[in-house]
Order: sequence, then structure tokens, then C-alpha cells
Amino acid sequence: MSFRGVFPYLVSPMDDQGQVKTAVLGDLVEHLIDKGVHGFAPLGSTGEYAYLTHAQRLDVVRAVIAACRGRVPVVAGVAAVATSDAVAQTEAMVQAGADGILAVMDSYFPVSDDGIVEYFTAIAVAARGRPVVIYTNPNFQRTDLNLDVIVRLSHVDNIRYIKDASSNTGRLLSIIERVEGRLEVFAASAHIPVSVMLIGGAGWMAGPACIVPEHSVALYDAATAGAWEHAMDIQRPLWRVSEIFAKYSLAACIKAALELQGFAVGDPLSPQQSLGAEAREEIGSVLKSLGAL
Amino acid sequence: MSFRGVFPYLVSPMDDQGQVKTAVLGDLVEHLIDKGVHGFAPLGSTGEYAYLTHAQRLDVVRAVIAACRGRVPVVAGVAAVATSDAVAQTEAMVQAGADGILAVMDSYFPVSDDGIVEYFTAIAVAARGRPVVIYTNPNFQRTDLNLDVIVRLSHVDNIRYIKDASSNTGRLLSIIERVEGRLEVFAASAHIPVSVMLIGGAGWMAGPACIVPEHSVALYDAATAGAWEHAMDIQRPLWRVSEIFAKYSLAACIKAALELQGFAVGDPLSPQQSLGAEAREEIGSVLKSLGAL
Amino acid sequence: MSFRGVFPYLVSPMDDQGQVKTAVLGDLVEHLIDKGVHGFAPLGSTGEYAYLTHAQRLDVVRAVIAACRGRVPVVAGVAAVATSDAVAQTEAMVQAGADGILAVMDSYFPVSDDGIVEYFTAIAVAARGRPVVIYTNPNFQRTDLNLDVIVRLSHVDNIRYIKDASSNTGRLLSIIERVEGRLEVFAASAHIPVSVMLIGGAGWMAGPACIVPEHSVALYDAATAGAWEHAMDIQRPLWRVSEIFAKYSLAACIKAALELQGFAVGDPLSPQQSLGAEAREEIGSVLKSLGAL
Amino acid sequence: MSFRGVFPYLVSPMDDQGQVKTAVLGDLVEHLIDKGVHGFAPLGSTGEYAYLTHAQRLDVVRAVIAACRGRVPVVAGVAAVATSDAVAQTEAMVQAGADGILAVMDSYFPVSDDGIVEYFTAIAVAARGRPVVIYTNPNFQRTDLNLDVIVRLSHVDNIRYIKDASSNTGRLLSIIERVEGRLEVFAASAHIPVSVMLIGGAGWMAGPACIVPEHSVALYDAATAGAWEHAMDIQRPLWRVSEIFAKYSLAACIKAALELQGFAVGDPLSPQQSLGAEAREEIGSVLKSLGAL
Repeated sequence: MSFRGVFPYLVSPMDDQGQVKTAVLGDLVEHLIDKGVHGFAPLGSTGEYAYLTHAQRLDVVRAVIAACRGRVPVVAGVAAVATSDAVAQTEAMVQAGADGILAVMDSYFPVSDDGIVEYFTAIAVAARGRPVVIYTNPNFQRTDLNLDVIVRLSHVDNIRYIKDASSNTGRLLSIIERVEGRLEVFAASAHIPVSVMLIGGAGWMAGPACIVPEHSVALYDAATAGAWEHAMDIQRPLWRVSEIFAKYSLAACIKAALELQGFAVGDPLSPQQSLGAEAREEIGSVLKSLGAL
Repeated sequence: MSFRGVFPYLVSPMDDQGQVKTAVLGDLVEHLIDKGVHGFAPLGSTGEYAYLTHAQRLDVVRAVIAACRGRVPVVAGVAAVATSDAVAQTEAMVQAGADGILAVMDSYFPVSDDGIVEYFTAIAVAARGRPVVIYTNPNFQRTDLNLDVIVRLSHVDNIRYIKDASSNTGRLLSIIERVEGRLEVFAASAHIPVSVMLIGGAGWMAGPACIVPEHSVALYDAATAGAWEHAMDIQRPLWRVSEIFAKYSLAACIKAALELQGFAVGDPLSPQQSLGAEAREEIGSVLKSLGAL
Repeated sequence: MSFRGVFPYLVSPMDDQGQVKTAVLGDLVEHLIDKGVHGFAPLGSTGEYAYLTHAQRLDVVRAVIAACRGRVPVVAGVAAVATSDAVAQTEAMVQAGADGILAVMDSYFPVSDDGIVEYFTAIAVAARGRPVVIYTNPNFQRTDLNLDVIVRLSHVDNIRYIKDASSNTGRLLSIIERVEGRLEVFAASAHIPVSVMLIGGAGWMAGPACIVPEHSVALYDAATAGAWEHAMDIQRPLWRVSEIFAKYSLAACIKAALELQGFAVGDPLSPQQSLGAEAREEIGSVLKSLGAL
Repeated sequence: MSFRGVFPYLVSPMDDQGQVKTAVLGDLVEHLIDKGVHGFAPLGSTGEYAYLTHAQRLDVVRAVIAACRGRVPVVAGVAAVATSDAVAQTEAMVQAGADGILAVMDSYFPVSDDGIVEYFTAIAVAARGRPVVIYTNPNFQRTDLNLDVIVRLSHVDNIRYIKDASSNTGRLLSIIERVEGRLEVFAASAHIPVSVMLIGGAGWMAGPACIVPEHSVALYDAATAGAWEHAMDIQRPLWRVSEIFAKYSLAACIKAALELQGFAVGDPLSPQQSLGAEAREEIGSVLKSLGAL
């Protein structure tokens, strides 16, 4: 199985009792498949994985898989500090039917390169052949993966992708040049997708694709067709969405945007605060400028 | 109930099956009470809380409470990203018999001051009158508490202490001056205990006290007696222990030291790596220089 | 006068008495014009401006202007902490015949937005109509310019360009979108030039263009012709040069590279240390892989 | 010659033509000697050295030396990026009659340990036997000195003091323990002076001593007499001065305070902005609470 294209980072809509709102999540999945997205990545940053218990995480992934019905791949997020916890989560996700694993390393004490390799390799083994996407986010996670350790990990058979959420696009090109095809690179919302496609990216996994899926797919199609200037025409207004994501807290922002679009995904999880009226207005105005509201 | 003095941050000795080694932990507790420590803080940074499941955390605290038999207070660590998770942990710790809560706020997205107040207040309510110690560690946790938010929290009835693990001792004096007695301040291993006592501290909660309890208690006694220069004589060689803690990974370092002292606490939890021969030798030599080996 | 294309950040070759080696600098300028570069930027980071006295800085610029003989524009670096110093430097550079000013704000204490506007506006006035390029480098300078202050500065008549040396390419797109043509954007060596051209950049001002001018110009020509995939073919091997620049100290690296190419530019200025044999070998091997040695 | 006690970091009062206001500076020096300070450190951070030309710096030091008339030592600030510049400044300061050199290493590119040793050693040689005080300020300077490099520098004959402006008091104890008397340690305004005295400090060099000299000297006297709790009684209200210094820009804050006390030192140098009415009021109220207004 191979991953390419636009993978929205799904939100995790929860009710007051801490139960997944599966109907809302199902509607969103259906809507996004209808708009042409190429897969889903539940339990990324946007999915507020860090605010969910293990049982809740599993419920989110199960709901997405059920709604997907195999039409596009589901790459389930796994994130832990301890290796043993990551392995247990991975096994549960595989059991639940995930097509791949998006692997995050949270950390507390600094981790050596050997520790990093140990952690991600253990996930890859537990994934039993399913593709693993390494996800690094130097903004929210404490452990950054240097190029040498990425190259080491690229030699693990089913570690096949990396999603880098730094804002350093040059780093992506360095990765691409160093791993010689053993890993493919997905962009995040902090990168300009068209730039990442031009340097050889495989697509992007990012929250904004939840709220502007049509533009995202059109941009991806233009880029894969080599129509770079047309892609850039789509990119330009789309960048506003990345900008408001960077300005406001990620999950709060995308949940507010989806609420505006009619998906009752609710508020971000406490202690996150929901956005005020002014922020909602700004988000609404960006969506309108894109015809997404 | 009131907390003062030397509270070792206990390690969490785990076997290969992920079970708490209760006998080892019990021996260590007995030994430290024998040396005069004033209480225990299981599940701090040194306790590797971040590497333990919720069930394992509860088992550690239960083992410590059982071994303590009420002789000194046990302040159980609670750490979460989501408020709801923190509340659930606190309730379980209270149920297990903890005398107080050491409250840590892990975080993912940046949290506003209101979110911080919401989080710690929810823990305080769940603690049902037991004293809460706020624990801030800007080195390992992403959310730092500014002075204004600390003052707001100081007005919550049972939030009565703060343990600050920054290396900025002046910040402690600013806190002391601002909270006007509503909070008392505990030092961490990054501060010089004698300095913190001089400016009005209540004691320290720190990993090193596990391996040099006698020196720690003697230093505390000298400081409370106002024998500042004698306290400084004890402090000077003791500082080497804080230095090796800063040099090596905290949990790896203290577990290695306790192993050298005959407590079979085992290795730090994966993906942490255990220390090499050279580091162990350096730790041993520091212990020897203090007569602690 | 308008600036576009490839502007090498020139090195500052100094002899043991602190005199500019004007012959060496002249040869380098001649060589680079011959290879088709579109202008020069003496006294950027690569030019070690921070290590030169004001008299030395002026001598470097005079030597470049003399060697250029008006064939391409010379954008002289001005960098200061105090506004009055920046103004004095700008006046001297204008007097010496500079075609434009590359304006850097060094800082000591944090500067407010009003202070930033005051500083760059004073330079713009002193430049008497000559175009000013704002140069921000968050890696080496302490003051970062936020988008709002950049927009304010874009309304100053002769502030017409910005060169951003962050590694955040998305930030460049945000600038381009916000300034609505009042500023044009130059990339630095931390950005991928082809990406910056695609999103609307005017070229790049960077040290690497000193040692790989032909490739740089070919890449620029491909990008301006809209031949994006051809540009990317040139970009890919060229990126190695940016990588070694990031790995080794900028000035040390480029001076070593130019020495290998036969320009006797000498060592970086003390307390910078010159590169060791291994680093020189790695640089040489990158140059060879590009046919630049 | 040996330095101990309270050395105010003098401000640099400049008129609109960029001339030193020698009369004002002379009055301040006289006033501070009258209050019992033990020496002066012109051209520290508070002295806005970074905003002054070399000629202005020399004029400031000359004015202080002239006003002092040998009654207490004057330790002149030297700060540069290039070694050659530092040497030239040092020679000029020695020539002007400075009793010692306060040596700062500004930097642009990262500097290796060898480069750091080269830089400070060159200053020590140029100081021709006069004591050199190394001044490190990780808040405003880019190069931090690790313990190993400090130990190396402690073996240079006339490098005899270090003033550390980190907020990490434990670092000072580590330095004291490592240099075995070859260096003595001065505190900065970010440290609590009484804590630094307790662990073995020689005094402090800091801006606040300009505005609260009596309290500063009383605190120093109490500490050297071993009256630690009395010293702490003086320290407690005095800490408010350090707090407002950290809150507001250093030079702006102290110049405003001195203006309130009747010294016409003027505004901080552009692009620094002078403080608003609210800040001035807060500073005034702190001074009043100490009886210093």
C-alpha cells in the first residue's frame, strides 16, 4: 500500500461525556472523500491526540475506519513517551484495521539517537508490515530528529514516509536528497505545499485540508501535472488558511472553522480555550475569501 | 497537614513485565525514613511519571503509601495534558490515600493563563482539601507559569505550595514576595538548597535526596537553625550531586546511583538508555567523595 | 534602479595588517561578473561585516565599486545597533557611490516595533532615494521583524526589498502577500532558491553564489523562464552547497571554498577559527561534484 | 589591585550632539562614592556600550576616571566581535588610566572554545597586568561560556574575576567550585546578591546599584559580617529593583530612575524608546518604597 496526495488531519469531535461524536466524524469523512482527498490521518496534532485517553484515541480511529469503508487509506496516529506504550498503541491500531501508522515520539528527558531509533523501530515491528509515517513537529514535541537519525530510520523496511512540521522547507530537500527514495516526504501546514511538491514531496498531511479540501486536491493535481504556475495561483489564496492556523491554536482554529461550515465538532478539549468572536470572524472571512463558506 | 523539609523524588523501579518492584521500593522508603527525610514525592520527573501508564503510576503510589505507614506524608504526582485526565488521576490518588498532590501540567498546544488556572483549580477541587503542590519545570514541560498566574492560583484554598525547577533562583524570591504567604516554595535540584532556604524556602523536593539523604537532612537542619555558614559547608560538596544530575539524564543518573548503593531499581525506561561505564564511574566517585558509597 | 537576480554576498579578504586585499577582491568581482551575476552585496554576513571596523567596511565597499565600474549594482551593507551609527554609515556608503543599501539592525536590548521603524526609516532617509534592502537574519541577529512591522516599513518610499535569512519559506509568502508589491523579496542561502522564485521572489542574495555563480545564474534563468522542473534539476545538486554552509561557519566555509578555487581571500577573521583539513576536504568534494573545482 | 564589593554599572549620559554629559556623570560618581560604593564599571549593559562609538566609549571612561580621582577603582568595559578590535579598545582604556577591564565578547557567528580563549587572552595581554573581569550575559550576548572554557581562562594570570549575568545561581557555585580561587565571582542584577555572597561571591556589578547605593552597600556589609538574616531583611525590598529592571529595558529603566532622583542623564539611545508615564510611575513607586526617592 502506498500513500500519496492530500491526507486531512482529522479533528476529534468529543461530547461532554468524553464520547466520540461518531455521526459528526462520519459526516466529515464522507464529505472529504466526496471532495477527493486521498486518505485520512486521525490523531495528528489537529486531532488533539495529546488530550485523549488511549480508549478515546482508539474510538476515534475505529470511527474513521468504519466511515471510510476502505475507500481511502487511514493512517492512525500513535504517540507516546515510552516505547512500550507506543508498541501497545500500535498493536491496537493495527487490530482495529488501520492501513498505516503515523508515529510521533513525545518525550520528557532528552533522547539519544539510539533511543530514537529504538522507539520508531519498535513501532515499525508492531505495525506488521503496514507503512509507518514518522511525524516530527519541533514546535510541539521536544525531540527533534536530525538528518543522521532519519537516514538510519529510512533503512527500516516499513518506515516509508516522513511528515515534517518544521517551517524549514530546506530541511525537506535535505531529507529527500539523503534518503535516496527509501522515505517519501509529506508536508505539513507550516510548509507551502506547492514548494514541497516542486522539490519532490508526496503530498501533505495537514489540518487545513479538512476545511478546504477542494482547493487542496486541485493544488495537488496541478502540481502532479507539472502546472506549477497554475498550482501557485491556487496556492496563493490558500496560504491564508495556513496563516490563521499559525496565528490561532491549531485545534481551536480548525474546530471553529468546521463549526462554521456546519459540522458540529464542538470545542477544543480543556484546558484549551475556545476561540473568541473576533477570531471566529477572521476565520470566517478567510473561508469566505476562498469560497469555502 | 503541612509540608516542610526534604522530600525525595522517588524513582519508579519496574521489572521487565512492567510491574512495580514493590520490595525494592519499600526498602528504599524504609532507608530514607531512617535517614530522616520529611516526606516523599513519588511520580516527579525522577519518578519517570511520563514513561508510566496510569495503572503503573497508581501502583507506584500505592506501594509508597503502604511502605510509609503514615510516618511521613506522601505527595503523589499527577500529570496530564487534558484537564479531565488530571482530575481522574487526582481522584485515584486521593482514593489510594495520598496526603497531597504534586500537580504537573504537561501541554501540547500553548495554554492561556485562563487554561492554566482552569487546569490546576480542577485538580485542587478533586484533591478534596488535600494540599496541592504546583510543580513547574521549564526544562521538560512546555508550559511555564508566569508570576501573575501563580498569584491567581495562590488564592485557591488548598493550592499551598509551589516547586519550581527552573534554575532561576531570583524567580523564587519574586514568587515568595508576591504570594504573601499563601504559597510556600520548595526548591528543586537545579537550585542551591541553602540559597533557597535563606530567601524563605520551605525545603526541597528533588531526586538527589534519594541518594544523599543524610547530607540533605543535615543541610536542612543547619539552615532552619540559622547556621548559614555551616549549612554552606555542607552545601558545597553536595552541589556535585546536582551537577552530575544536570549532566546526565536525571532518571538514568539516579537509578545508576541507587544501584551502586545496593538498591536494585533497574534501568531507566525505554527509550531512555542506561548510562555507560564512564558515567557510572563518575557518579560513583561523586558518591564516594561524599561518603555516600 | 531596480534589483533582480543573483547577488553574491562577497567575502572581505583582509591582510595581516587589516588592509583590504583589493586585488583579490577585484579578481573575484571580475570573475563573478563574467559568470553573469546581477549585482553584488558586500558586507553581508558572509562579508564578515561584524568583524570589521567602520573604516575597513568602507574600504571593502570602495574596492567593490571600483572593480565593478558600474556594470552591475553594488548594494552596500550597513549594520549598527544605534540609529545614529547606521545613519553615519549610510551617508558614507552613499558618498562612496553605493547603488543601494542592505540594511541590518543589530541589537542589544530588545527593540520595540516603533524603534525598528525609526531605525530603518532613518537609513532610508540617509540613502537619499537609493533603494534600501532590509536584511533580517534571525540566526545571527537578535531582533526579528514581524509581519506588521514589515508592512509598516514597506510604506517608506525607497525601502523596496527585503532579504530574509530565516529558514521559514512560508514566511516569505506571507510577506509577499501582505506587502502587495511595495517590497520585493530576496531569498538567502537558508531558503531553496527555486521555491522562493516559484512563490514570487526577485532573486537571492547569498554567499554560495560566490563559489557557484554559473549554476546560480542558470537556476535563476530557468526559473524566470518558467522552466520549473529544469530549475529543480539544477537546484538539487546545488543544495549541497547550502548544506555545507549551514554545517560550517558561513565565512570560514566560503573563504575556504574560494581559496580552493584559487582566490587568495585568506582566513576568517579572529576569533573565528579557520576550518580543519576534513572540512576543507568535504567542501572540495561538494565543489567537485558540481564541477566548480 | 583587588576588586570586591558593590560596583555600579554606570549609565552613559549623552547630549543631542552625541557628547558625554561629563558634569552629570561627575555628579553621579561623586554621589555614589559618597554612598560608599567600592568601584565603578562604566560601559556595561546598563552603560549602553553597544550604542556608543569607540570614541564615545573612551570619553565615558575618561570622564569617570577624572571624576573618581583614584578614590575607587574603575573597571572599563571592552566589547567587540573581532579580537583585533577588542585589543585596540583595551589598549586605549589602559592608556586612559583604567584600573581593570570588564571584557565582553559580542559575537556574530558561533565561536568555538578555542576562539573564546583566544579572544579573552588577547584582552588580558593588552591589559598589561591589570585585572580582567570576564562578563557573560546570555540574555543579550550570543556566546555563552561553558564551565570548561571558564576553567581554561582562569589559568590566564590577570583574568581574575567573572561576572555572570545569567539568572542561574547554581552556575555560579559550579564556577566557584571549579576555578579553585583563581577567579572570583561577581553577581549581576539577575542574581539575588545575598545568595551569591553566601555561596562565596566577591560582590556585584550591576545597574541597580546606581539608584540604591546605600541599600546595596548595607547589604554587602551585612553579608561580609555574616549577618545573613539581617542581609536578607535588606535584600527582600531591594529585590523589587531587580524585578523592574527585568521588566523594563535595562538602560531605559535606570535612566528614568536617575532622572527621577535628579540626575539629568537623559533618554536611552535610539532606537531604544524612552519609557512611558506608567512605567515611570511604577519605577518611582519602587524607589519610594525603598526611601530612594
